[in-house]
Amino acid sequence: MDFSRFDDYLREVNSEIEGLLQGEPEKLYVAARHITLAGGKRIRPLLCFLSCEALNCAGENVIKTAAAIELIHTFTLIHDDIMDRDSLRRGVPSVHEEFGETTAILAGDLLFSKAFEMTDPRMVRILAHASAEICEGQEMDIEFERRKKVSESEYLEMVEKKTAVLLEVATKAGAILGKGSRKQISALAKFGLGLGMAFQIHDDVLEITADEGRFGKPLGSDIAGGKKSLVIIKAAEFLRDREKEEFIRILGNDRGADVQRAIELIKNSGALEYCMEREEDFIKGAIDSLGDLPETEAKKSLFDVADFVIRRDS
Amino acid sequence: MDFSRFDDYLREVNSEIEGLLQGEPEKLYVAARHITLAGGKRIRPLLCFLSCEALNCAGENVIKTAAAIELIHTFTLIHDDIMDRDSLRRGVPSVHEEFGETTAILAGDLLFSKAFEMTDPRMVRILAHASAEICEGQEMDIEFERRKKVSESEYLEMVEKKTAVLLEVATKAGAILGKGSRKQISALAKFGLGLGMAFQIHDDVLEITADEGRFGKPLGSDIAGGKKSLVIIKAAEFLRDREKEEFIRILGNDRGADVQRAIELIKNSGALEYCMEREEDFIKGAIDSLGDLPETEAKKSLFDVADFVIRRDS
Repeated sequence: MDFSRFDDYLREVNSEIEGLLQGEPEKLYVAARHITLAGGKRIRPLLCFLSCEALNCAGENVIKTAAAIELIHTFTLIHDDIMDRDSLRRGVPSVHEEFGETTAILAGDLLFSKAFEMTDPRMVRILAHASAEICEGQEMDIEFERRKKVSESEYLEMVEKKTAVLLEVATKAGAILGKGSRKQISALAKFGLGLGMAFQIHDDVLEITADEGRFGKPLGSDIAGGKKSLVIIKAAEFLRDREKEEFIRILGNDRGADVQRAIELIKNSGALEYCMEREEDFIKGAIDSLGDLPETEAKKSLFDVADFVIRRDS
Repeated sequence: MDFSRFDDYLREVNSEIEGLLQGEPEKLYVAARHITLAGGKRIRPLLCFLSCEALNCAGENVIKTAAAIELIHTFTLIHDDIMDRDSLRRGVPSVHEEFGETTAILAGDLLFSKAFEMTDPRMVRILAHASAEICEGQEMDIEFERRKKVSESEYLEMVEKKTAVLLEVATKAGAILGKGSRKQISALAKFGLGLGMAFQIHDDVLEITADEGRFGKPLGSDIAGGKKSLVIIKAAEFLRDREKEEFIRILGNDRGADVQRAIELIKNSGALEYCMEREEDFIKGAIDSLGDLPETEAKKSLFDVADFVIRRDS
């Protein structure tokens, strides 16, 4: 997907964010800008903006709200990286790696504060509720690490909270600011939610299949970290006999896990194909939910984003 | 000060908070409730409520906003304790000590989210701005630990952000919800700010002079942690010759600092008396700012709170 036609719009979002992240102490603000302005696909702001446009409405405060949603996303990345001990993000050292854990916690808190300073007041409750759900989802994700078995439905509940609700908020906020009808708001919210589910499952797949240089973080860290991604859950289910035993042994061996061998086993298990089918299902559901929306350029672009979500290789 | 006449009101605030902190995963919510409901003086909710009452107005949403401010305060305590490696808070183990660092980061984030979910929408920008300033103040506080010399004015700037702005927000929000005039809002905001300054300086003094059992955390941890409290800044300035050298040597010795000896030196330096004078100044300024406010029961109670702030022994 060619994002360049949204360049002007994304530049506005970025300059809104950059403007808000100026201040002192210097170190705190440098840390807050570090990951925030180190790239990132800006999928959430884009979804917010396009959802508003799809209703043929300019939408007051949509840029500010889109930027606020991106700040909340980045805040969660910074805190998650501390918890997951991930040292790379968006191809650069993670915030705690570069600035220490204390400043990383504070940089996250600062982004969170700035998000609420910036957003349209009508969006506060929705954003705050989603943020609470993200915390719940992240806690589940962490608790799953210590469990031997996690079911697909537990995984899906976790992903809905940890990832999908924020994409749901992005499309929903765009629809509300675009003065959509109740039905339109709910349709666009559903679209965002489905997209979010597919997005996370695709991320889990990329953890195994991506080109490491482009992915911006090491492959297979889910395996080493004991994460229960859908790929891992399904591989453990699909593998048989000796391969199954071997796979489960690798997962349980948190230090020095043989990540390469586990990746090989996953690739042979059929789990990747299963996950790609689930992605397709979620994307189909998402697209169907927009059936009643008028055929606009923005709607076409929303479909392009949906397509991108399950085709991207990084 | 006898807080019992506010019991009904504080019960409402507490039940508002307790109601909001129910959910799953269980561990996350238990952690979020742990410090939040383990006591605490509820000074900020009280200030919010009394500021509203002082304008003879019931004030819609004042309980919810007062609760939200307390949640923001608690969120900062949880994250600060991680950064400062403090293992006790309000007489119980700190959240990271009891539930691990990951859950503590998330419990803080959750309280922050819930605060914005709960507060009156008109208060969001003020609360969010204050939260950003608290992050700035905490970063300054941490950076000061690594510096040899910090001036009184740098200290005051740090304390204004780290502590005083949230008390300012409490009184200001109460005044806004109480439909105060611009002048009344500014007077009550000034009152809260001055109170906040005195509050933190008194806390610094208590770190040296309190009864450890009642204080709920170990004495002298500022010294061991390299904090530049006003007491420490002033003792380093007031002490002479061999005692000065000895004091500075103890401060620089972050492991195994002789905290007892440093406390003795501080007590002999005149720094405590200096700090208590500064507290009095701030409280006087705060009280003066309410000169034009009608003489009500609530105003009297605000003065009682001011008095309590610099007389409390825990």
